[in-house]
Amino acid sequence: MPELRKDYVLDRWVIIATERAKRPHDFQQETIEHTETTCVFCPGNEKNTPNEILRYPETGAWNIRVVPNKYPAVKREGDATIKTHNTFYTFADAYGSHEIIIETADHKKQLWDLPIQDIETLLHIYQQRISTLLSMPGIHYVQIFKNHGPAAGTSISHSHTQLIGHNTIPKGIRDEHTAIQAHSSCPYCAVIQREKDSYRRCFENNTMIAFTPYASRFPFEIIILPKKHTTTLAAIENYADLASILKQILIKLKEINAPYNLLFHYSPQSSNIHFHIEILPRLALWGGFEFTGTIINPLAPEDAAKFYRGEK
Amino acid sequence: MPELRKDYVLDRWVIIATERAKRPHDFQQETIEHTETTCVFCPGNEKNTPNEILRYPETGAWNIRVVPNKYPAVKREGDATIKTHNTFYTFADAYGSHEIIIETADHKKQLWDLPIQDIETLLHIYQQRISTLLSMPGIHYVQIFKNHGPAAGTSISHSHTQLIGHNTIPKGIRDEHTAIQAHSSCPYCAVIQREKDSYRRCFENNTMIAFTPYASRFPFEIIILPKKHTTTLAAIENYADLASILKQILIKLKEINAPYNLLFHYSPQSSNIHFHIEILPRLALWGGFEFTGTIINPLAPEDAAKFYRGEK
Repeated sequence: MPELRKDYVLDRWVIIATERAKRPHDFQQETIEHTETTCVFCPGNEKNTPNEILRYPETGAWNIRVVPNKYPAVKREGDATIKTHNTFYTFADAYGSHEIIIETADHKKQLWDLPIQDIETLLHIYQQRISTLLSMPGIHYVQIFKNHGPAAGTSISHSHTQLIGHNTIPKGIRDEHTAIQAHSSCPYCAVIQREKDSYRRCFENNTMIAFTPYASRFPFEIIILPKKHTTTLAAIENYADLASILKQILIKLKEINAPYNLLFHYSPQSSNIHFHIEILPRLALWGGFEFTGTIINPLAPEDAAKFYRGEK
Repeated sequence: MPELRKDYVLDRWVIIATERAKRPHDFQQETIEHTETTCVFCPGNEKNTPNEILRYPETGAWNIRVVPNKYPAVKREGDATIKTHNTFYTFADAYGSHEIIIETADHKKQLWDLPIQDIETLLHIYQQRISTLLSMPGIHYVQIFKNHGPAAGTSISHSHTQLIGHNTIPKGIRDEHTAIQAHSSCPYCAVIQREKDSYRRCFENNTMIAFTPYASRFPFEIIILPKKHTTTLAAIENYADLASILKQILIKLKEINAPYNLLFHYSPQSSNIHFHIEILPRLALWGGFEFTGTIINPLAPEDAAKFYRGEK
């Protein structure tokens, strides 16, 4: 059973998930290039994934499938409660659900190749899974994230998103929750007002805006926010607008074949975080300096914005 | 001039250092395998590094050299003061010194090959540079870090450590400072008392202890602390003990040829952080889940400790 552990001193949580390492001393995720015949995520090989959670459409050939992760970092077993051992060590069973959302039946397509309508359907499925999992006792947050390319941490090339719902709220979300307490109104709403006319603005439609953050950590880092204050994916008023702006970004990342992580930040219950999607291209490696807490980014976000706008 | 920028909302600092990218869209650090003839860090090629800061020994053939980084992330130019633009954007010139400590004249040796006495000399040189730089106005902390291997962020194979002294205290250090405020006595002293008899203890000598942290973020992560409460490298009572325990760890990392980051955590002025060295092997990649704030580690620290103790 994987274990959730807290650092001795810091508010830093780790899941010790030993079943994910295939062999001792072998932690490099190798991308194995599968063909349609051998790929576990391809139609025809459905029996090779654990019990299907859902498929879309429900009848006929599927476009999207949700299945449990075969090597889960969290499990729906044990006790979700955070406990203390010897009045010193803080831990719990890593309780929750780790799922794979297969984004397309087509082995040769990546998320950036999909039509806007299919991306919109995916967003609805994310929302459906978030909603279902958050209703389960012991699951406090559902992280939706995509790792595209080996440099971004994926080992299977068939296009997919992952979801981990488990028994802590991630530090990144709690930090945002804490930070917004210091403001009398939503600071992200203020950021949008500033950035909509800045050199960092990239794309905008009726309800959504995307820009490269002022203090971008990664080359080509970009953030999408609903222009109106919205705290959850469920509350997003226009999924088509979100899918459309996401597609505009992904088309540009495909141009440079960028490995990337895509993360959803939304409010946990009784919080007021402005919903956003972060896209973190993984073109530069972090070293010891970054792991001490200051990040070096070799690309100015103003230049990244020019790239997104097609100005260079 | 590189720029230091703060996130809109979070206490997160980034240095935008565009001179470090050689070509647009090219951020991958390639390790170029130099020979003794072409390597800029080799004896005979001293003219290819910027003005030398120090060498040891001062006369005759050198063993250790300190030189400015040719592609610095911070510069001793501009204004170190943190400012606000349009009452909204927080920034400063990335003011400071970015230096390279060439650890050996021998192109074929890595830190893990050096005798304990040479490692001890290195520690004294780190301390000398920290002390000199901290006495300069505008430099608030000096980060000492080593990136070993391309997966850990290095691009030059000749063994070296880096140092960045600049105009902010890194978040990782400030977080520790804040966390220890909640304790009536040093929490790291309490950790040592707990871990000295635990399954995670790896090495110990008269003044130093090394163990794999309970909530290790990386496979084979290991931490070195002085057993007696000590807050700075300058205050370490026995450098030979520190060099010796470090060498014990590095010998094991060499066995598995692990890329790693090595970081120094010490107290800024008027803080009481227990000095420690963190060694973070980079055998597993971080993906989107980790960047949202929960970390998955596929190796239990108890198993990593067995490896260090030679039990498997």
